[in-house]
This record gives sequence, structure tokens and C-alpha cells, in this order.
Amino acid sequence: MEKVDIGKRILRENEKYAFENIMFLAERKKLCLNMISSPGSGKTTILTRTIDELKGKLRIGVIEGDIQTDLDAERIRATEAPVVQINTEGACHLSAPQISAALKRLPVEDLDLIFIENVGNLVCPSAFELGESGKIVVLSVAEGDDKPAKYPAIFAKSKVLLINKIDLLDGGHVDFDIERAKADARRLNKAIEILPISAKTGEGMGNWYDRLEKWVKNSRL
Amino acid sequence: MEKVDIGKRILRENEKYAFENIMFLAERKKLCLNMISSPGSGKTTILTRTIDELKGKLRIGVIEGDIQTDLDAERIRATEAPVVQINTEGACHLSAPQISAALKRLPVEDLDLIFIENVGNLVCPSAFELGESGKIVVLSVAEGDDKPAKYPAIFAKSKVLLINKIDLLDGGHVDFDIERAKADARRLNKAIEILPISAKTGEGMGNWYDRLEKWVKNSRL
Repeated sequence: MEKVDIGKRILRENEKYAFENIMFLAERKKLCLNMISSPGSGKTTILTRTIDELKGKLRIGVIEGDIQTDLDAERIRATEAPVVQINTEGACHLSAPQISAALKRLPVEDLDLIFIENVGNLVCPSAFELGESGKIVVLSVAEGDDKPAKYPAIFAKSKVLLINKIDLLDGGHVDFDIERAKADARRLNKAIEILPISAKTGEGMGNWYDRLEKWVKNSRL
Repeated sequence: MEKVDIGKRILRENEKYAFENIMFLAERKKLCLNMISSPGSGKTTILTRTIDELKGKLRIGVIEGDIQTDLDAERIRATEAPVVQINTEGACHLSAPQISAALKRLPVEDLDLIFIENVGNLVCPSAFELGESGKIVVLSVAEGDDKPAKYPAIFAKSKVLLINKIDLLDGGHVDFDIERAKADARRLNKAIEILPISAKTGEGMGNWYDRLEKWVKNSRL
């Protein structure tokens, strides 16, 4: 019983900060998206390409979550976008208090859109609300089409599913039934928007940019 | 403080069962390997191929850990190896009490080797000892060569690193500097044995089978 109570208290403490973050972002009419995936699905590559190709259209800032290293933040910094690195030192997910502190270190007023790149983990980050406007789940085709069924929580909670590395489908380098992945994700979440992309070749990225631009526009209303 | 104390108590409770599992396996001179990786690195494919190709040489049983579904257990069952499915119902790792219960449901006396396929998660399972003889970390080349540096704990604790899906390196379908991944893993763990494999094409699997056969032999001494 005690274990459950303490778990609940940690989640309540997290929710308090998450609510503060929601208010902070809403007052400023800023869109904030929480990207969640397994390690190596391509989150950072999606972000660097998105930042580069939307330059002049959307001003993007990034909060980078990693257990250790600032390798990803360095890659974001190369795009000249403002970035704040959080090292969780072993923890398996970002928490709302960390995001609250990071938002204060970003030039939020000058941005249209803030991405949170969560720790690479398809499980734990789904349980911690950060105050984001929406969750984006990324699944690489190299991971297999059974992942929505096997890791349902994050697919049930996300607004967009990016199916990345579709360049590997050409030539049959990986076995991935995209229709099965889509059907399983939609079974968990009727409203989920599914965009197949390759952040490497650029295929499908236009649909992602259109979605982002519309989303930013709506968040300004 | 309370949070830390409760965390410690959960770990202590886990360690008590882990110790019991160690004794259970040692008394029977059985080898038990805990496979840990991100979702989709190919753990189940490695296991099904290993079971099929070592038939007649090693009698293998499997404990399957998944958040939901028994898709992986079904794949193992097709090899005719004995398998026990654990559904964690949301939890991000297997725990020693679960393994203790699963071991009692396997025909342990008739087996040479028991694999535990942990929940797909490169972070949390590394913190929970299950009483295994050793940890095997699997990294797919599609995940990127920066993963040992970014998720150090599991690479520091594993006896063997299987670098899987090396078939994707031919033709440059993915960018993965295998020497960088090896050097980073060895920096964390001097003793780690690194075996590049493709469970799909079979490349390098012979080295893995040799390693397993030696390991089983040693565990019988």
C-alpha cells in the first residue's frame, strides 16, 4: 500500500508542475510537443531536419532529455536553434519540474514551437505529463510492426505517430507491415494521425511540416 | 527521503528474490541469461534462430517479458521450446519475484539454458537483478552507434554485447560506426565481449553459439 501511495504522491507532485507548465505555455500561446520513442528511432534527426527546413517559417526551440551526454544537444545546436540539455543521470524519463526549469532557460517569447525530446524509452515517459500541448510518438520501421500492440500506452496517448526510416522499406531491407502498425495504433487511438516519413531522405516530411504549421497557427488563436 | 527509502525497500525486496533465484539455478547448475535491449532490436528473432540451430545440442527454455500481448511467446512456442509468458501490465522491467514464479513453471531440470527476454527498454531493466548468470545487451545497428555512450548502465553491466542487424550495414542502408560503438562499450566495460551478428541472415551467429556452448559447459562444472 505504501508503495502505491508514494507512487501517487510522486505523480501528484509531477502533475502540479505539469499544470504550471500548461498555464505558462497557454498564457504565451506557445505550442510545446513531447517526442517519445525507443532509443535510436531518429528523434534528433527528425528535429534537426525540421528546424533546418522550417527556418524563416517557424522559430523552434528544443529541450533535450538524455540520461547522459549532450550529444543530441550538440546536434541541435549546429542548427542554431536554442536548446537546453537535461541530463537525468540514470532516470528513465523527463519530469514536469525539469521542464519547468528548462522553459525558464529558453527564449520562449521568441519561439513559435518548443520540442521536448524525451529520454529514449517507449514505456516510462508515457506516464509522466510534462504540460505539453501534445505527444508525438516516433516508431522506426527497423523496430518492427508489432510495437503498437506491445507498448500500447504511448500510442494511445499520442496525437501523431511518425513512422520513420521508411527508406529502409524500399528494397525490403526490413520486414515491416505498415498497414498492421497503422491498424494496431488506430485500434488504441481512433484520433491518432499517422505520418510515414524518412528524416534521412526527406520523404513524407512535407506532410509533417504542414501539420506543424497548422498546429502552431491554431495555438495562436 | 521517504521516496529514496521506499525505492531502496523495493530494490531490497527484489534482491531477496534475485538471491533465491541465483541459489535455485546454482543448485541445478543451470545457466540463465537476461537479454536486455530497446524495443525492436531483434531479441525474439535471435532467440528463435538460436533455439532452432542449437536443437540437439542445447535444450533451451525461455521466460518472455512483455508489457502486453503474448506475440513473442507465440514465436518462441513455434520452435517447440518451453516458454513462460509474463505480462507486466504497464511495468517497464521484469522483477526477480516474477522470475522466481516463472522458473517454477518451466521444466528446469530438462533444460541446459534459460533465456529471459526482458521488456524492451534500454534503461530500467538494468537496475533490477533477476538472479541471472549474466546479462546480454542487444543493440541493432538501426539504433545508432551513440547508444553505449547515451545509455551507459546496461553496457557497463553486460557480459556480452550483440550488435544485431549487421546486414543493414552492407550497402550503407544505415549510418553506424561499429568501431565507435565497440570503443564506447569497452570504455564502460573492459570485459564485455562484443559479437556482431545478423539474426536475419545468420552472419556471425556461429560465434554466438560457440560462446553459449562454452558458457553452458562452464556452468556445469
